[in-house]
Amino acid sequence: MQAQFITLDGIDGAGKSTNLDVMKNWFAERRLPVVFTREPGGTPVGEALREILLNPATRAGLRTETLLMFAARQQHIETVILPNLKKGIHVISDRFTDATFAYQGGGRGVPFADIETLENWVQGSLRPNLTLLLDVPLEISMNRIAQTREKDRFEQEQADFFIRVRDAYLTRAAAAPKRYAIIDSNRDLAAVKHSIETVLDRHFQAV
Amino acid sequence: MQAQFITLDGIDGAGKSTNLDVMKNWFAERRLPVVFTREPGGTPVGEALREILLNPATRAGLRTETLLMFAARQQHIETVILPNLKKGIHVISDRFTDATFAYQGGGRGVPFADIETLENWVQGSLRPNLTLLLDVPLEISMNRIAQTREKDRFEQEQADFFIRVRDAYLTRAAAAPKRYAIIDSNRDLAAVKHSIETVLDRHFQAV
Repeated sequence: MQAQFITLDGIDGAGKSTNLDVMKNWFAERRLPVVFTREPGGTPVGEALREILLNPATRAGLRTETLLMFAARQQHIETVILPNLKKGIHVISDRFTDATFAYQGGGRGVPFADIETLENWVQGSLRPNLTLLLDVPLEISMNRIAQTREKDRFEQEQADFFIRVRDAYLTRAAAAPKRYAIIDSNRDLAAVKHSIETVLDRHFQAV
Repeated sequence: MQAQFITLDGIDGAGKSTNLDVMKNWFAERRLPVVFTREPGGTPVGEALREILLNPATRAGLRTETLLMFAARQQHIETVILPNLKKGIHVISDRFTDATFAYQGGGRGVPFADIETLENWVQGSLRPNLTLLLDVPLEISMNRIAQTREKDRFEQEQADFFIRVRDAYLTRAAAAPKRYAIIDSNRDLAAVKHSIETVLDRHFQAV
C-alpha cells in the first residue's frame, strides 16, 4: 500500500479537534504508521507565519495572506508531507489547500483561478488521496465557537462570510466526490465517530 | 508628469546604500515629491518576513523563500508603492523583483518561468519605469562587504553564487535596455554620483 495523504477540513466549529482524536485512535488501533500535522503551521517557518496570519493586529492584505498560506504550505510539503510519504508513513493534515479555496477564495473573494495558479506552483501534482470534510450548519458552528474559546481573527468574521466559506467547501467536494467524504457533524459524537471510521475503513480497503 | 516607480538594484556590496543618498539628494534639490522604501520590508508584514528571511538560523526552503519574497512584495505594492504613485509621489525602492530573479533565480536555481508566474500574480502589469543597476566585479563587492559589516545569510553564500547573481542581473538588463541603466560602481564616488544624476536627469526630461 502506498502511504496515503489525508486531509481533514471544514469551517471553524465543525469539530475538527474532536474528530482528529477519532482518527488518531483509528490509526493507533491498527498500528499503521502515521504523522498528524496542521496548516498553517506544521513547521518552524509555518508556525511563525501562523502567528502573523492569526493575529487580529496583523495588517496583511488578502492577496498577501494567500501567498503566506502557500509559503507555509510549500515548507510543510517539502519538510513534512513528502518526506513522510516517501518513507511509507501516512500523513494526516488538519487543513490543507481546500481551506484556502474556502476562506480566501469563497469567503473573501480571491479568484479561484488565482488560487489554482499557486496550488500548481507549490504542489505540482500533489493532491490529497482523501479529504474528510466536516460539515455543520452555520448556527451550530457559531454556537460551538462561542462556548469553547476566544475567537481568532478568522473566526471574528461575519455570518455571511462563513456561509460563503461553507458553500465553497461543499462546492469543491461536489465537484470531486471520489476524493471527498462529507461528514455531517451535526450529530452526536458517537454517530460522527462511526462515520469517520467507516470512511477510513473503506478508503484503506480500496488502496 | 506621471509619478515614476524607480528601483535600485545590484549585488551585495555594489554600493546601494551610498548611492541611495545620491538619489535622495537629487530629489531633494529638485523638491520632487518622493518616498524611499526597500525590499524585503517596507511594511510591518514585510519587516517581519525580512527577519525570517535574513536570519541565518532560518530553515525556509528555496521555493518557500521565493513565495515569502513575493508576499512581502504584494503587501509593499498595495500599501506603499501604488498608493504613493496614485497620489503623484515618485517611489524609489531599494531592491525589487529583479533581485528575486537574480538571487533566487540565477543564484539558487528557481526557474525564471516560475518567478515570472509569481511576478504576474503579484504585480499584474506593474513594472518599474526605470531600474538603476549598480554593477561591480565580484572581488570588489566581496571586499566592500568584508570591510563594512557582518554578513547576513545571503551574503554568506560562495563566490560562484554571486557570479551567477551578477550574471542574472546583467542578462535581465541587456534584455530590456530601455528600462535599465547599468551604473559601473567600480569607480570613485564622484564619478558614480555623476552617472546616477545623469541617468535621473535624462529619465525625468523624457517623461
